[in-house]
Amino acid sequence: MKHFFSVNQLDVDTIYHLCDAAKRYRNEQVHVSKQIFAANVFTEPSTRTKLSFIAAQRKIGLDVLEIDGVQSSISKGESLEDTAITLEAIGADVLIIRDQSNEWIDELQDKISIPMINAGAGTLEHPTQCMLDVYTLYEEFGSFEDLNVVIAGDIKHSRVAHSNIQTLTRLGANVYTSCAPAFQDPTLDVPNVSMDEAVTFADCMMLLRIQHERHEGEETSVDHYLEQYGLTKSREKQMKKKAIIMHPGPVNRNVEMDETLIYCDRSRVKQQIQNGVYIRMAIMLYMLQKWGIIDESFTNERNDTKQ
Amino acid sequence: MKHFFSVNQLDVDTIYHLCDAAKRYRNEQVHVSKQIFAANVFTEPSTRTKLSFIAAQRKIGLDVLEIDGVQSSISKGESLEDTAITLEAIGADVLIIRDQSNEWIDELQDKISIPMINAGAGTLEHPTQCMLDVYTLYEEFGSFEDLNVVIAGDIKHSRVAHSNIQTLTRLGANVYTSCAPAFQDPTLDVPNVSMDEAVTFADCMMLLRIQHERHEGEETSVDHYLEQYGLTKSREKQMKKKAIIMHPGPVNRNVEMDETLIYCDRSRVKQQIQNGVYIRMAIMLYMLQKWGIIDESFTNERNDTKQ
Amino acid sequence: MKHFFSVNQLDVDTIYHLCDAAKRYRNEQVHVSKQIFAANVFTEPSTRTKLSFIAAQRKIGLDVLEIDGVQSSISKGESLEDTAITLEAIGADVLIIRDQSNEWIDELQDKISIPMINAGAGTLEHPTQCMLDVYTLYEEFGSFEDLNVVIAGDIKHSRVAHSNIQTLTRLGANVYTSCAPAFQDPTLDVPNVSMDEAVTFADCMMLLRIQHERHEGEETSVDHYLEQYGLTKSREKQMKKKAIIMHPGPVNRNVEMDETLIYCDRSRVKQQIQNGVYIRMAIMLYMLQKWGIIDESFTNERNDTKQ
Repeated sequence: MKHFFSVNQLDVDTIYHLCDAAKRYRNEQVHVSKQIFAANVFTEPSTRTKLSFIAAQRKIGLDVLEIDGVQSSISKGESLEDTAITLEAIGADVLIIRDQSNEWIDELQDKISIPMINAGAGTLEHPTQCMLDVYTLYEEFGSFEDLNVVIAGDIKHSRVAHSNIQTLTRLGANVYTSCAPAFQDPTLDVPNVSMDEAVTFADCMMLLRIQHERHEGEETSVDHYLEQYGLTKSREKQMKKKAIIMHPGPVNRNVEMDETLIYCDRSRVKQQIQNGVYIRMAIMLYMLQKWGIIDESFTNERNDTKQ
Repeated sequence: MKHFFSVNQLDVDTIYHLCDAAKRYRNEQVHVSKQIFAANVFTEPSTRTKLSFIAAQRKIGLDVLEIDGVQSSISKGESLEDTAITLEAIGADVLIIRDQSNEWIDELQDKISIPMINAGAGTLEHPTQCMLDVYTLYEEFGSFEDLNVVIAGDIKHSRVAHSNIQTLTRLGANVYTSCAPAFQDPTLDVPNVSMDEAVTFADCMMLLRIQHERHEGEETSVDHYLEQYGLTKSREKQMKKKAIIMHPGPVNRNVEMDETLIYCDRSRVKQQIQNGVYIRMAIMLYMLQKWGIIDESFTNERNDTKQ
Repeated sequence: MKHFFSVNQLDVDTIYHLCDAAKRYRNEQVHVSKQIFAANVFTEPSTRTKLSFIAAQRKIGLDVLEIDGVQSSISKGESLEDTAITLEAIGADVLIIRDQSNEWIDELQDKISIPMINAGAGTLEHPTQCMLDVYTLYEEFGSFEDLNVVIAGDIKHSRVAHSNIQTLTRLGANVYTSCAPAFQDPTLDVPNVSMDEAVTFADCMMLLRIQHERHEGEETSVDHYLEQYGLTKSREKQMKKKAIIMHPGPVNRNVEMDETLIYCDRSRVKQQIQNGVYIRMAIMLYMLQKWGIIDESFTNERNDTKQ
């Protein structure tokens, strides 16, 4: 794998390998043994994802260079390409890029000689979010076989819904959607169920954030959204005993779910944030190894420790 | 002490203990021996306080995560609570928070399981500024007994005036205020004196910054302020031989004091900035120890070195 | 040398010394052995220069404090002087300053007791850019004797044209300018040639960026600029076999040069960015040594390693 743009690039073994690595990093210190620079290029604001990457970078001992889209040359007309080339020349060993275009990976991949990791692209891909969701389910249930996952909410504007549907299906889960007509994506071949039905059989209610900022020219009222399509307190009571609630955050309170449920016992919202750091550590170390920037023995050593 | 919100939480022994620690850190390297993350959440701009915390964090070897209110999710409607919970989940070991509300500590304290330190809240509390003022006086005079401190200026809108009055009184100083009628706080039981009188007996003229940004809907003219209520060159000449001038900075030139006095021999403005770093090192290490995040032996060792 | 404001302060031997040091740092790890803080004060936006300094600072093991003009106290009326004094008091060991005024060095030099390095001042000086250009030519050609350098473009508004002309002339190069009448600087005593002529004899076509942001009140059209004054594809074909193209970046595509030339074989644009990091490492270490902040033996050791 050259650059990490989509979870579709990872085979099932690699997905499990990354989840196992993430799990180890929860209890084990891992530090690269030489100075390695990660550069974060976020041309769209994203506090959570960026902080998660920074924490992951610092935990594995990387030095961090930051370009911020709002203040940077990008806002003055410099292209993402020029910025990426500049960062490589300045000494970055790995680029973490978030941009609203879907095509940046194609445009950059022959011009950049260091690994790039997608931290959110266009409306289609957000692979590290997908991997943290996968890892959170793996930690919770140990297996995806016969697991009922209902992805609920703004499917159409979600970066992560599509990769989650494909990846969880590949791993053996039964994936459903539950969404308002305006949020449906007709290209998806997945059964759509009502929230009232969903809560009765789901092992995981995976709620998505309504992305108001991506609803250009569309009028979306959130009045009555909770009652019609969200996770109300009474719906939560219908959930199976061990079923969990996931949400990538930040939650629109009393829209996607009742605000009393955000950090309830079923909620894995905090674990998702935690897991985001561990899976990003795993993904960055994996890429640095694949590219020979750090030694392969690094992982083997870790694997030994594990046994 | 769970979280550090007010100097009122500290008994006199602890205040001296922190001042002694700050004094040691001036000459002694102290570094935590494992990776510890401090997260700075400043929803109000504050270059000086934030830089002082960052310098203190780096000096004791902490990794720094930063959320900036202007660019962050907070500005897009995410609550301080969600941000604090996110930072804890991401791996922060201690939160430094500045926010304009007086209530954030009450709202957060049962939801956060890591120590929080107040870097400025509402109009009432700014305990690390208070501690750096206390420490600066302690370094200068060695004792607070019979020390005459005149706090002059915008008492009403000052975060630090109230805690300084209470704390210095507790430590044995004689505290006075000197301010324009519009800046008086009638709830305070402290003698108010004119500037002409103040300079004749004060050991410390502690000037406050006029906080224009907190004067909502009030008209405050600074014309003639210096002559009427500020520290002019001629008033400075009336000061006692060893009396000093303090100001938290940044100074409004020729308003609170004549600009030629800002860095004069009597001025302790630079020392205050320096001392802010040392006292913040002491406060963060104290909190990390109290919470068992770093070892108690850490301090004992330091005390041994001191003898 | 007290502060580093202009390349004119450096004698020829020191220029070669810094270039040799930069060359070593390309292959050799150098790390200061104690905690040293660099503070970057950029009151004008400058992504590239700032990132280059940060990368250089991290590579030599400095801790970095950042003040950003847009968000900082500076934008709220605090003077550069107060900011610089604050940073010194907070613990900075070296200040890197970019400001649009030409006079800041004169205003600050008696008030600051730590070394200051100019990262761009007014319209006249940008010495670290000049040094990286000099170093890039030195790496390429090994000597400046009889080297034909044509500096082309917006001479009048360029910070670096003047220092480059003076410094390259001092080092023995033959320096020419090539520019549109509106961009000429009549105070310069350097032959001006057309682009058509320049490309036939230049060993280096050193293109400058058109600084639209400095053209207050002047109307500058870039229509036909490339054809009349820029480096077109057909002009590039006339260049001598080993001649190179330089540009400080970011390039205005199809203005200063045809966009297909930006990263062509002759282009040293990427090397300039890389070299900027190494020469800034050399300059900062040199200043820290001169001031006794790090040991002189630091360099001697390096010189030994070199032999």
